[in-house]
Amino acid sequence: MRNLFVFITILSFQAGFLPLFAQDADSMMIRKIYTEALTNPVAYHHLDYLCNRIGGRLCGSPQAEKAVQWTKKIMEDMGLDSVYLQPVMVEHWERGAKESGLVISQKAGRHELHICAVGGSVGTPKAGITAGIVEVKNFGQLQSMGRKQIEGKIVFFNREADPSQLYTFDAYGGAVDQRARGAMNASGFGAIAVVVRSATTAHDNFPHTGNQHYADSVKAIPAFCVSTNDADSLSLWLMKDPALKVFLKASCIQHPVSPSYNVIGEIKGTVHPGEIILVGGHLDSWDIGQGAHDDGAGIVQCIEVLRLFKALNIKPIHTIRMVAFMDEECGQTGAKVYAGESKRLADAGKEKHIAAIEADRGGLTPQGFSMEGKDEEVNKILGWNKLLQPYGLWSFGKSGSGVDIRDLKSQGALLIALVTDSQRYFDYHHSANDTFDKVNVRELELGAAAMGGLVLMIDRKW
Amino acid sequence: MRNLFVFITILSFQAGFLPLFAQDADSMMIRKIYTEALTNPVAYHHLDYLCNRIGGRLCGSPQAEKAVQWTKKIMEDMGLDSVYLQPVMVEHWERGAKESGLVISQKAGRHELHICAVGGSVGTPKAGITAGIVEVKNFGQLQSMGRKQIEGKIVFFNREADPSQLYTFDAYGGAVDQRARGAMNASGFGAIAVVVRSATTAHDNFPHTGNQHYADSVKAIPAFCVSTNDADSLSLWLMKDPALKVFLKASCIQHPVSPSYNVIGEIKGTVHPGEIILVGGHLDSWDIGQGAHDDGAGIVQCIEVLRLFKALNIKPIHTIRMVAFMDEECGQTGAKVYAGESKRLADAGKEKHIAAIEADRGGLTPQGFSMEGKDEEVNKILGWNKLLQPYGLWSFGKSGSGVDIRDLKSQGALLIALVTDSQRYFDYHHSANDTFDKVNVRELELGAAAMGGLVLMIDRKW
Repeated sequence: MRNLFVFITILSFQAGFLPLFAQDADSMMIRKIYTEALTNPVAYHHLDYLCNRIGGRLCGSPQAEKAVQWTKKIMEDMGLDSVYLQPVMVEHWERGAKESGLVISQKAGRHELHICAVGGSVGTPKAGITAGIVEVKNFGQLQSMGRKQIEGKIVFFNREADPSQLYTFDAYGGAVDQRARGAMNASGFGAIAVVVRSATTAHDNFPHTGNQHYADSVKAIPAFCVSTNDADSLSLWLMKDPALKVFLKASCIQHPVSPSYNVIGEIKGTVHPGEIILVGGHLDSWDIGQGAHDDGAGIVQCIEVLRLFKALNIKPIHTIRMVAFMDEECGQTGAKVYAGESKRLADAGKEKHIAAIEADRGGLTPQGFSMEGKDEEVNKILGWNKLLQPYGLWSFGKSGSGVDIRDLKSQGALLIALVTDSQRYFDYHHSANDTFDKVNVRELELGAAAMGGLVLMIDRKW
Repeated sequence: MRNLFVFITILSFQAGFLPLFAQDADSMMIRKIYTEALTNPVAYHHLDYLCNRIGGRLCGSPQAEKAVQWTKKIMEDMGLDSVYLQPVMVEHWERGAKESGLVISQKAGRHELHICAVGGSVGTPKAGITAGIVEVKNFGQLQSMGRKQIEGKIVFFNREADPSQLYTFDAYGGAVDQRARGAMNASGFGAIAVVVRSATTAHDNFPHTGNQHYADSVKAIPAFCVSTNDADSLSLWLMKDPALKVFLKASCIQHPVSPSYNVIGEIKGTVHPGEIILVGGHLDSWDIGQGAHDDGAGIVQCIEVLRLFKALNIKPIHTIRMVAFMDEECGQTGAKVYAGESKRLADAGKEKHIAAIEADRGGLTPQGFSMEGKDEEVNKILGWNKLLQPYGLWSFGKSGSGVDIRDLKSQGALLIALVTDSQRYFDYHHSANDTFDKVNVRELELGAAAMGGLVLMIDRKW
């Protein structure tokens, strides 16, 4: 949502205001969508199952496979016009046994660390690694220190996610390079492992995992995330004893690529069945939590959009397609396969995406939509403000959408992200704290209703 | 926030946008206020103490007295220009031993109920009450049933807080009459006790207490709140067995009125020390939780407003006064004493409130301000939209403020409420679930910063 400001008119967030629009059929139908979503907690019960019965769904895992079958079954039971699986070959990384991390120092004491391996990391040797550790805040500092100070050591990346940022995705974005490219960069200077401060504004004991990349040119070294509390402590212990040792152990396994699926369900368009309005989220999640906010919430909200249309007997003009993408967290292979197959159909004149909405910013109070696309289409959506703002949707920007839908840009689709209140999101993101009980039923439902309202408008007015 | 819509311009909620206003001293100072609030979790640590060390603070209780002394000490330690206590005589009701509720039925089974006495309720006889129970949804239904069906029975008020309302205060407002006047009305028809569905949109096992009123003309009968889950179950059990009995026991005690205090702290105005901008919340809370959202959050946010001014060395033109009101929950005696004393000073030409802001809607993401006052003053605040909206403050309405400040209207003060995201508020409100761990540090801080920014603007531009 950077670099663009959009002037819109706001109405206070009150149902009481709606009578002004009473004659308007769109407005009345949006109100029906909200009432249905807020009075029937189907999405919440779905999320309960996905989190508490299936759990963390790392791509390639048995849980991811269970989630695929469950999502397909749920959509079949809804009586959609079409439900199918789209095969995807996914990376299959396994964390292995619970990681260990230990600070060992005469002066600073002996302390267990709350750590976890970064996704895709290699493991340590079976006996673990014990070495000295050097703290840096950024890659520039790493370079300044050079091979002489780094070789044979563990590098500790400890730059904070800036709490003064208002939108926490910006705080995350300013810190996540340490996790994504820390191991690769440190290895270039001879480091034997990295420990990275968790990319979160929260101060607690949860390590937050995530993806990373190795470079072919350097050795793949083990990479760990450490909780923010422990990162702060480690920094203090290093002041007391710069020569302290850290023990690290992980037994990660990289399996061969393995088969999985995107799960797709549709309500066919009555007039333009080949023109698609997509709603999507990703079905895979990290393994250490339940993937409740990231992105179980998005999945059940997208299913809910279809349910709302069915429950209210709305017959869309265009096809409304829900895609549960596989493997957003590791390789985005689901997104690539989907976009490739869709391009093939588009080139053959068989289908065309007119818009795609991704829900992947947590099951938190929706605030609006962020868009990528042609100005005239963005402006069309901004023109619906009066209909959407009574529901607290005030943030509209032309500033990014979602990684699962971005490849649909080539079809000329308007790409849209559901924007949510970001303040709590990184308390949960990629950690063992991302569990069902952290999702508020109403916040979840409002996000589904917001998407439902937007899909209705796109369908009727495109 | 009913019946008024305000057209405002919105900028996307991004710090990245701020450089456009960089030359503007107000804008820069507001950004400093936000940065200070978001990077120094003082308010959060204060709330931790208030909740976890002092706990629930029912007026007249030892905890309320501790909270008074703690608040005074905190403000004294901040080096304010003036800190003092304002004596108030408060109601002193005590819950007594944990209440018991039991369903007794051959057909429907024996079930413990999650109940608690309504605040101010009389107790039951020592042996408890056992009687049949009749369910009603509203007072009209009560009247239709009449004395014949009600006499000697317990009345079960089971109207739901309407989940289709977008702003949960409206859902609460549509249900709370059952708690506030249920006992009084049922007693008029000869009922011997009432059990009231908790006024919340949440579905869980927490009973939510709150205040009520008896009428002099009818007998004061015991009143209980029951959790929403148990209310749903009780209704089903009554279908199975309309003759089921309910056992209720409470040992509430009404003590004589007892002395307490409002706690007041000030930064004196450099130019107009007699003109007051008030920020306030209430220090008392219900006894069964920790009063974290209601209203510990408001208290520590108001203290934080003063801290922000001190930390940034802002010398206000007008006096910034923080009032920690006592006894909002029971008799609003603190508000009455404060307004009375202030009127006396105003009549003597010694002080005048120009604006008063109350924070009493939970430590949740701030969304804007609700106002009561003269159109030209409301419009002045609406004119600052460009400065406030980059911080996600989008909801501005002329629609009510807060119960602790409403009596200042007679002085011509502009009355303002901090409006927060209401979705989760009634999950906590007046229940054992209103605890410190339910407050997110950033959401709390953003509320304090929002008030700080508004106070700055009022001080500079009034």
